[in-house]
Order: sequence, then structure tokens, then C-alpha cells
Amino acid sequence: MRTLYHHWLSPASRKVRIVLGEKKLVYEMRVEQVWERRPQFLRMNPAGEVPVFLEEDGRAFCDAAAISEYLDELYPEPPLLGESPSERAEVRRLVAWFDLKFKAEVTQHLSTEKIMKRFLGMGQPDSEAIRCATHNLKTHINYIAHLAERRNYLAGNQFSLADIAAASHLSVIDYLGDVNWDANAEAKDWYVRVKSRRSMRTILADRIPGLQPPQYYDKLDF
Amino acid sequence: MRTLYHHWLSPASRKVRIVLGEKKLVYEMRVEQVWERRPQFLRMNPAGEVPVFLEEDGRAFCDAAAISEYLDELYPEPPLLGESPSERAEVRRLVAWFDLKFKAEVTQHLSTEKIMKRFLGMGQPDSEAIRCATHNLKTHINYIAHLAERRNYLAGNQFSLADIAAASHLSVIDYLGDVNWDANAEAKDWYVRVKSRRSMRTILADRIPGLQPPQYYDKLDF
Repeated sequence: MRTLYHHWLSPASRKVRIVLGEKKLVYEMRVEQVWERRPQFLRMNPAGEVPVFLEEDGRAFCDAAAISEYLDELYPEPPLLGESPSERAEVRRLVAWFDLKFKAEVTQHLSTEKIMKRFLGMGQPDSEAIRCATHNLKTHINYIAHLAERRNYLAGNQFSLADIAAASHLSVIDYLGDVNWDANAEAKDWYVRVKSRRSMRTILADRIPGLQPPQYYDKLDF
Repeated sequence: MRTLYHHWLSPASRKVRIVLGEKKLVYEMRVEQVWERRPQFLRMNPAGEVPVFLEEDGRAFCDAAAISEYLDELYPEPPLLGESPSERAEVRRLVAWFDLKFKAEVTQHLSTEKIMKRFLGMGQPDSEAIRCATHNLKTHINYIAHLAERRNYLAGNQFSLADIAAASHLSVIDYLGDVNWDANAEAKDWYVRVKSRRSMRTILADRIPGLQPPQYYDKLDF
């Protein structure tokens, strides 16, 4: 069976899981503790990162963006990249926005301080890093609202990899209780639409032992 | 005319210039000092980064990967992404390898310490950061050799966006004189093949006032 090597609170892994869910593909999940640098895993992905998607014939595919486009090419329904070259360019611009910029300015700080430090015993969270990330998050939520005001979904009128990238990061941050959804109605409305998709429901059902999300985390009415 | 907003020693800008060169497209170049955060530029790209590619009708395209794929879709000759979904996944995996991993482990340190600090008056280079980046570079050069031993080009038998991404970063590092090409014959042979392409020749002709590259920088015999 197809296998996805992933980690629970890895936005990149969530992204591929949502794509697999949208395409209604059946697969097995295996948690990879990437910090153990398991030789067998490094042979599949010398970058040492999740997700890695293993086809039934044993071919390994690495990098969340590469895997997502691969799956979208093989299984075109529903289309997740847009119809024209310029629509696809807008989807890819926003995927990079969330996977590079949002990650560097928000997710990385919060997940290092609140998750990695806690579970790997790396000392106390740095409150200054958390404060910066929370400040940056407001700017990003405003940008989401700016896009969602003008379009049904972030890159246009169709749900796309741009929404999936954004939701992958936001759902991790939201698990930590760091998003103030009430500050921005347009962003919240967009997230309600995304949360209501079946592909998101399984992601939102994940629970990390010893780390509970806020009450509203998986609710459509929040 | 089509316009590319770029910066001389930005690997992401070089990447799009090489793609435009491969596709034999005519365009105008404008240098953007991104640190000035010019409002008109931020309206084109709220991420505030180069490259930005402006079509003749005024539409702006942002993010080097998104622009490269856009150009490859509009102008399929020569193809730069591979023929099958799995070939394209390998090209995209390696593009991410160089644009994310190589950038974080090598280019970013060397360009911050040797270029940004010098031209923006940000103090003395940090020799420990340079030492780390130089050490990481050796591992990456070995990985390039590992790929080039098995394939004609990095992602397969055809020149692709993977080679373009790698050459964009390496040519910037090489300008600073930081690559020991003699340490690895396979990597050097690959770089000779890449350097000999017409699309690379114009990139290698760039000179930054006050910062000369090593003698061998644009030579095919180095």
C-alpha cells in the first residue's frame, strides 16, 4: 500500500495528507521521528525531512510541494492548481508564501518554542520569539483576509494548494491556541470553509498526547 | 516589454534569468534594492522579494519557482521540467533541495557575511558562520557529484530546473571564490557542462563594482 512518512504537527506532512484526502486516495501513515536520523529513512530522503511518500512499487517521493504536484498530475480530480498558467502561478506564489514566509516568520518560532523545546527537553520557551511570531501572525491573518475578501478562496474562486498550504500552517498554530480568530471576520469565514472539507476533518481529529488543543480547535462554529 | 526586477547576486533572480535565457525570451532588467522597501515594488510583490516578472500587460508574477514553472508552461521549448510526473517530481525535489536546503546551509551565510555586511555596512564578517557554510558546501558538492555520476544532469538525462537552481546558487558562491572545484571531478564536470550553456554565459558576465570574482570564475577551463 502507498505509505506516507509524516509527523503529527508538521505542516508539510499535513499538506500532503490534505491533498491525499482531496484525491480520496488510500494510504498508510507512519510517524517518522526525523531527529533520530534513521539510516533507512535517510536513504529514502537524504534531506532527512518529512513528508516522504512511498509508492507501492517502492519509489520514494520527497518534498511536500513536489509530492503535491505529483499527486495532482496523476489524479487530476479535484484540480488543486488552477486552469491557466497565470492561475497556477498565483497558486504557486501563495504556496511559497505560506511554506517559506509564514513558516519562517510564524510557524517555525511557535513550533520550536512550544513543541520542540517541550518534547525534546530543550529548555524553557523564549517569550520574545513567541511575542514576535504572534505579532507576525496578525499581519499574515490580515493578508489572508485581504485575499479572502476579493476571492472565494486564497488564490481564486477554487479551493487550491494555496488554501491547503495556509491551512496546514494555521491548523498547527491553532492547535497551540495562538490564533485570535475574532480579530478578523473575513479570515475566519475563509477558515470555516476550509475546516468544513472532509480532507481537513481527519487532520483536525489528531491529538498529541500531553498537548491538548483549545476547545474550539476542531469546531466549525468557533 | 517584459521586465524582470532582480538583484545581481540573488540566486533566485539568476534562476529566472537562466530560464528566460533558455527560452530565448527578450526582456528588460531592473535592479531592485529590496531593502529600500519601495511602495510601488511592494504593491507588485507584498513579499518584498526579487525576482518579480512583469508581463507586457502589467501583470506581475512573483516567486522564482512560480515564475519558472509559468515560463516553462507558456514556452515549452526547451522543456525544463521532465516528461513524466515522476521525472517532474524529481526535478521539483532538487529545486527545493537547492532553493531551501542549500540556501539555508550555504548561500545565506556566505552572502550575508561577505556581501550584505560589506555593502550595507553591517560590521565585520562572522568567521564562524563562513567556516560552517564552507563545511556544508563540501557535503553539497559531494551530493552533486553523487547525482552527476549516475545521470547526465542532476535530475536525469536532460538539463532541467534542478541544474538551474543549483547553478544559480553555486555561481553566486563561486563569485566569492568559495568553491574548491578541484576536490571533486564529477561535480566540476557537471558545472563545466552547465557553464557552457549560452543562458549561463550572460550570468557569468555580471560584475559587481568593488567586488571582483576569481580569475577562473567565467572560464570553462578552471
